[in-house]
Amino acid sequence: MKKDKISSAVIRRLPRYFRYLNDLYHNGIVRVSSETLARSMGLTASQIRQDLSCFGGFGQQGYGYNVERLRDEVAAILGMNNNHTIIILGAGNLGRALIENFPFRSSGFRLTAAFDIDPVLVGTRLGGVPVYHVDMLQSYIAEHKTDVAVLTVPASVAKSSAALLMDCGIEGLWNFTNVEIPKNGHENVRIENVHFADSLLTLSYMISEEKL
Amino acid sequence: MKKDKISSAVIRRLPRYFRYLNDLYHNGIVRVSSETLARSMGLTASQIRQDLSCFGGFGQQGYGYNVERLRDEVAAILGMNNNHTIIILGAGNLGRALIENFPFRSSGFRLTAAFDIDPVLVGTRLGGVPVYHVDMLQSYIAEHKTDVAVLTVPASVAKSSAALLMDCGIEGLWNFTNVEIPKNGHENVRIENVHFADSLLTLSYMISEEKL
Repeated sequence: MKKDKISSAVIRRLPRYFRYLNDLYHNGIVRVSSETLARSMGLTASQIRQDLSCFGGFGQQGYGYNVERLRDEVAAILGMNNNHTIIILGAGNLGRALIENFPFRSSGFRLTAAFDIDPVLVGTRLGGVPVYHVDMLQSYIAEHKTDVAVLTVPASVAKSSAALLMDCGIEGLWNFTNVEIPKNGHENVRIENVHFADSLLTLSYMISEEKL
Repeated sequence: MKKDKISSAVIRRLPRYFRYLNDLYHNGIVRVSSETLARSMGLTASQIRQDLSCFGGFGQQGYGYNVERLRDEVAAILGMNNNHTIIILGAGNLGRALIENFPFRSSGFRLTAAFDIDPVLVGTRLGGVPVYHVDMLQSYIAEHKTDVAVLTVPASVAKSSAALLMDCGIEGLWNFTNVEIPKNGHENVRIENVHFADSLLTLSYMISEEKL
């Protein structure tokens, strides 16, 4: 797999490829042409062929792609077989929505614990996962391999919480706080920001465009 | 404003431009060069100049961009001044997180009502907004201009809820259900899907890449 040649635009599309291929697989589809894949994904067939060739895609003239093989290849590139572990900091509404409903397993992550300061929550379990006090964070991470932390704390404590997590050696932050997290020397930490507003504004554009 | 020439890739970047420009504005910055904007956004200066020229950006040789003017122009293109109204269908954890914490106003949307089937919630107010029974949806939309609906219902009722909303004449769906919504004849409806998994898988890729 020629990984270092994959551009960031292709990487951004890889999760979508995985999603579509996984759907096809679960619908019993064995092979798919770049044309069919393109139509359902809203891309062009040549873009798909180009994207997939970046990591040695398995397309064959007159056959197309083997769905399962391609899906598994994409999954491997995405690191889905790496037994990643993840914790959640902040078990408010959003944190709880993720704990109880988000299928971490399907993305290759094992959710191991949640942390909050609410005395009503601390000591309970949510979605099968123990909720600890934030004071326990450092000792927990010292004792349990933890790759990624979900940041669903209030914006006011986003930076301090992120700093604490990075000091503990976390590798990735999945940041829902809408606060720009400074790395402050932890340049190797990867941060993925979820900005709901970006998505809503895209929709705003689309419905506004209609009226022009 | 040469709107119809804006490519979808540029549109996807517009909310980010808005976010960065708005931050600069609130930090008292009056003008910014494409180089500075590029550095903070992780793009190249030439890409920024090209993007902004798509809608007649205001860059001036040796001066750069006027932050407030450019921000307002981006906001206008995004439809943020259109007094969009929005309702939420599904006041579970995720719905409540959005109702109580998401700044709809800052994106140009007025949240007017929430709908659920939970008898504990129906008749109450959440984040200043009334919660009605889903049975009231049709009559509510008939009486109140409603542009967009947020879909935060369980996946099992995602398609039927979306169909009902589209029959009611909603223009946009902000879909958090992870279910692909068929338009079934409502081709003019715009759907923006939020796929948390796509974001987590991007992070998975980034931390896996480290180890290669």
